[in-house]
Amino acid sequence: MGQFNRIGIFAKRDDLQIHDTLISLTQYLSELNYTFYLDKYAGSLLQQPCHTLPELAQIINLAIVVGGDGTLLSVGRMMSAYNIPVVGVNRGRVGFLVDIKPQELHNQLGPVLAGNFHEEQRTLLQAEAWRGEELLGQGKALNDVVIHARDQVRMIEFTTYIDKKFVHTQHADGIVVSTPTGSTAYALSSGGPIMHPELNAIVMVPVCPHTLTQRPLVVGGNSLIELHLCTNRPINSRVSFDGHNDIDLESGDRVHITQSKDRLRLLHPQGYDYYHILRTKLYWGLQL
Amino acid sequence: MGQFNRIGIFAKRDDLQIHDTLISLTQYLSELNYTFYLDKYAGSLLQQPCHTLPELAQIINLAIVVGGDGTLLSVGRMMSAYNIPVVGVNRGRVGFLVDIKPQELHNQLGPVLAGNFHEEQRTLLQAEAWRGEELLGQGKALNDVVIHARDQVRMIEFTTYIDKKFVHTQHADGIVVSTPTGSTAYALSSGGPIMHPELNAIVMVPVCPHTLTQRPLVVGGNSLIELHLCTNRPINSRVSFDGHNDIDLESGDRVHITQSKDRLRLLHPQGYDYYHILRTKLYWGLQL
Amino acid sequence: MGQFNRIGIFAKRDDLQIHDTLISLTQYLSELNYTFYLDKYAGSLLQQPCHTLPELAQIINLAIVVGGDGTLLSVGRMMSAYNIPVVGVNRGRVGFLVDIKPQELHNQLGPVLAGNFHEEQRTLLQAEAWRGEELLGQGKALNDVVIHARDQVRMIEFTTYIDKKFVHTQHADGIVVSTPTGSTAYALSSGGPIMHPELNAIVMVPVCPHTLTQRPLVVGGNSLIELHLCTNRPINSRVSFDGHNDIDLESGDRVHITQSKDRLRLLHPQGYDYYHILRTKLYWGLQL
Amino acid sequence: MGQFNRIGIFAKRDDLQIHDTLISLTQYLSELNYTFYLDKYAGSLLQQPCHTLPELAQIINLAIVVGGDGTLLSVGRMMSAYNIPVVGVNRGRVGFLVDIKPQELHNQLGPVLAGNFHEEQRTLLQAEAWRGEELLGQGKALNDVVIHARDQVRMIEFTTYIDKKFVHTQHADGIVVSTPTGSTAYALSSGGPIMHPELNAIVMVPVCPHTLTQRPLVVGGNSLIELHLCTNRPINSRVSFDGHNDIDLESGDRVHITQSKDRLRLLHPQGYDYYHILRTKLYWGLQL
Repeated sequence: MGQFNRIGIFAKRDDLQIHDTLISLTQYLSELNYTFYLDKYAGSLLQQPCHTLPELAQIINLAIVVGGDGTLLSVGRMMSAYNIPVVGVNRGRVGFLVDIKPQELHNQLGPVLAGNFHEEQRTLLQAEAWRGEELLGQGKALNDVVIHARDQVRMIEFTTYIDKKFVHTQHADGIVVSTPTGSTAYALSSGGPIMHPELNAIVMVPVCPHTLTQRPLVVGGNSLIELHLCTNRPINSRVSFDGHNDIDLESGDRVHITQSKDRLRLLHPQGYDYYHILRTKLYWGLQL
Repeated sequence: MGQFNRIGIFAKRDDLQIHDTLISLTQYLSELNYTFYLDKYAGSLLQQPCHTLPELAQIINLAIVVGGDGTLLSVGRMMSAYNIPVVGVNRGRVGFLVDIKPQELHNQLGPVLAGNFHEEQRTLLQAEAWRGEELLGQGKALNDVVIHARDQVRMIEFTTYIDKKFVHTQHADGIVVSTPTGSTAYALSSGGPIMHPELNAIVMVPVCPHTLTQRPLVVGGNSLIELHLCTNRPINSRVSFDGHNDIDLESGDRVHITQSKDRLRLLHPQGYDYYHILRTKLYWGLQL
Repeated sequence: MGQFNRIGIFAKRDDLQIHDTLISLTQYLSELNYTFYLDKYAGSLLQQPCHTLPELAQIINLAIVVGGDGTLLSVGRMMSAYNIPVVGVNRGRVGFLVDIKPQELHNQLGPVLAGNFHEEQRTLLQAEAWRGEELLGQGKALNDVVIHARDQVRMIEFTTYIDKKFVHTQHADGIVVSTPTGSTAYALSSGGPIMHPELNAIVMVPVCPHTLTQRPLVVGGNSLIELHLCTNRPINSRVSFDGHNDIDLESGDRVHITQSKDRLRLLHPQGYDYYHILRTKLYWGLQL
Repeated sequence: MGQFNRIGIFAKRDDLQIHDTLISLTQYLSELNYTFYLDKYAGSLLQQPCHTLPELAQIINLAIVVGGDGTLLSVGRMMSAYNIPVVGVNRGRVGFLVDIKPQELHNQLGPVLAGNFHEEQRTLLQAEAWRGEELLGQGKALNDVVIHARDQVRMIEFTTYIDKKFVHTQHADGIVVSTPTGSTAYALSSGGPIMHPELNAIVMVPVCPHTLTQRPLVVGGNSLIELHLCTNRPINSRVSFDGHNDIDLESGDRVHITQSKDRLRLLHPQGYDYYHILRTKLYWGLQL
């Protein structure tokens, strides 16, 4: 048995399709005499006892996620705070983050459990939303922090400061502030570049900017990004973290974003190839 | 006196900046012995009696809009149903639609009143939202009909049919279906092309599409466009008309869009030059 | 036997892969007692007598193209001048224009020959290049007329006029002036919209424009487009027609582009569905 | 007198507009008792003795460039090899790199000469072009290394490897491999993101890619990028460095690109603000 002797199993919420994979996974771990613990979604699907995320974070030294990239994002945000590595078993189709095939547990997961893996350190963002001196809330994101109009028919207006320097004021539907991990998610839909996961950088991508001269802006990973919602436009907006945990914003509110000191330790089978994932997910190679 | 002897004056809502322009305009019309009637916003600003839009539509044979493009959109939608021509006085800065300068009433508006003008026929869209056999609502748009997620953190999924032919199913934040007039508005922010106002065409522009292969699609003005919200994703969305008059949608709802039989008769001073407006509004000619 | 009793067969240049298709096609036509004539490429591949394009244009009343879209573009430009309909047999993979599968001659080509087909009228562009009063040359294009720097490291600068109205002066690598047919070719790579083939329109797409405010511009099919190469930049450029038949240009030269009065009569099997072709060629439906 | 006691003056080639600035500059330096040396373009404009670039590189400890960004690129490539700092005097309009105004020599250049400046370290690329075992040539670039078709009507096909890993094979007009400095030049016209100059990164931007799924890709500054021209397409292409010093390429040739070990030491007056330059050059702040 390798270094991972207490394993947490995390499942996609309410997804019956992964029931069989969970059965296979727990049988496989049992055969190998691994001790494992279920989160509430895995426990619910398997009708077995489960543990809360904080409990699991205290117990386990490896998190196995069964589901899609969204599930891994959610588990990864939590585990990054405890330095617990995460590995993903997908639902039959490779994700950007979850890359072990359910039918390849022996070939792909086995070596990882035995300590033979490729480890990536993925950066996260952390953000705080402020109203005057009041901290409205905060959040972490593996993909992106997004500020967006709540009422989509009106644009928001906001001013960007980087490292305390005024960058510009713009009108747009919103803005995506993304890690390299998130650069293939919403930031890509909004016209941002792909960034290699090892790049120490943050990209800011305007969503449907009102003026034609705006472009995605890539800055260093240690930058302090401050977004101030302008007061002359009483437009309601919202900040979200990996598409969840929204905080409602008003004009005059401010969002401060930096890289988190935490890193997600993301494990892959040996031979992991980021470009292979890109090709597969983006259908590179298909010709017109 | 020319053909326009009963003039409606329509003002931007609650905009004190145009008070002086309204004074100048009504004085100018009085001097020329034109009869004019005020809408509620103009009446409120001038502290004079006003008329409802339906009343005005029965009385007037010219509508003068004082404000920005948004005000003209709103008045134009109504007037197009009555075939009443519309001319716009801007707020000191040229718009795409309102092009008479407040300080040039004599030189620019005078000839228009006297029958010496350039007339454009701008197309409109009309749309109906359906839930099964129930008509949820309908609307008209001079710029665009937009379907957009109400909760911005989740994409909508919808299928497009054109002239009863299946086009495709896509995931996106939304879709903009735009007239040539609207092609310089939200459609442009979403990556659509500029379309000359005289073009008999409709453009469909996806907003932040999930896949990288989607592009704006320009079809003939007589096309029937049907957008069906897919049922496998219980995402709330909304259809809006020129950014207003939203109708909330659920999965399974359908929106049918065609060109309206109405046209907006948009008047300009002689010498009107669409490309001059484009250059001015889009800052063409400024070099990097 | 239907209306097409004298058939021209046109082959992709020097393409051995289509040898078997040519054999099948000529056998199939012989069995049905159709008279056919070969162009030089088909004749060369079949080792049989051939005819020149001008000869064929005088004889035939249907052109069958065996090859890809490029071959059909070339044959189509010629046949459009004679009002001779064209149908395409592809090389095993559907094209935007050539849509009959080689193994489906009986099912797909047979009905077309018998007069049971879907006919499209595709517009073409014609262009003239002028130096002062000297006509440098002219050309026709089913896809696009492209002006591009000959030396790629320097941009060209040119002024656009539409219907004798100044539009703007811009710096760019070049500009693509495209028919709806060409909107899925080079214009698409340069960021242009897709235009339905029945749309009576022309799109102008700048290639790598120097300023960020340029966008594709769609104008009516009857527009006169004039592009003047500015004289203050002695940059050599070139105009090409469907990617061929270049004419070298110097600063000060002018290119005049209009829709041709000719139309390409493009035949398809019944059931032809433009959107099916789009989906297939652009891989719509593949999800991230 | 500060640390810079032997100053090289480099001028834009054949540009009479800067004659007066050169006079002012040399007078100013003479008054301050600085020793200065002219390059051939400055010498030609001032009718004074000049030195070759290699000579200057041995003598001077500061290079003052009078001209535009293009001139600074050229001088900067050379000076970076000798670790000699460079400062730019513009031609009346601020550049991305040359930011001292000709009429502000005393206020802006004076403090720089006295040792009171803001210094940036700008990265460069170096590239080698190979045909089999033969080194065809090499070059350095402050902005970008560009591979582009020589005959613009045919696309090139090339395979990209990063750090010896296969990325993909694509068809395009070309590809721009750019430093952060170059991200506001040709890479931006091709759709690339803006990258902060201090970012240790390289961006690869395809030019008019044939497939719709290609996006700009940002990788770490220490990456080895290899571009292999495919052999199945006999298309001639060319690699250029900052738009100059072309090397002609054939199918099968390979270009290897890495960050140079050299850095350009770019000096600015105190208070230098990259975002101010961005706003000015990209016209941020102008509203539609």
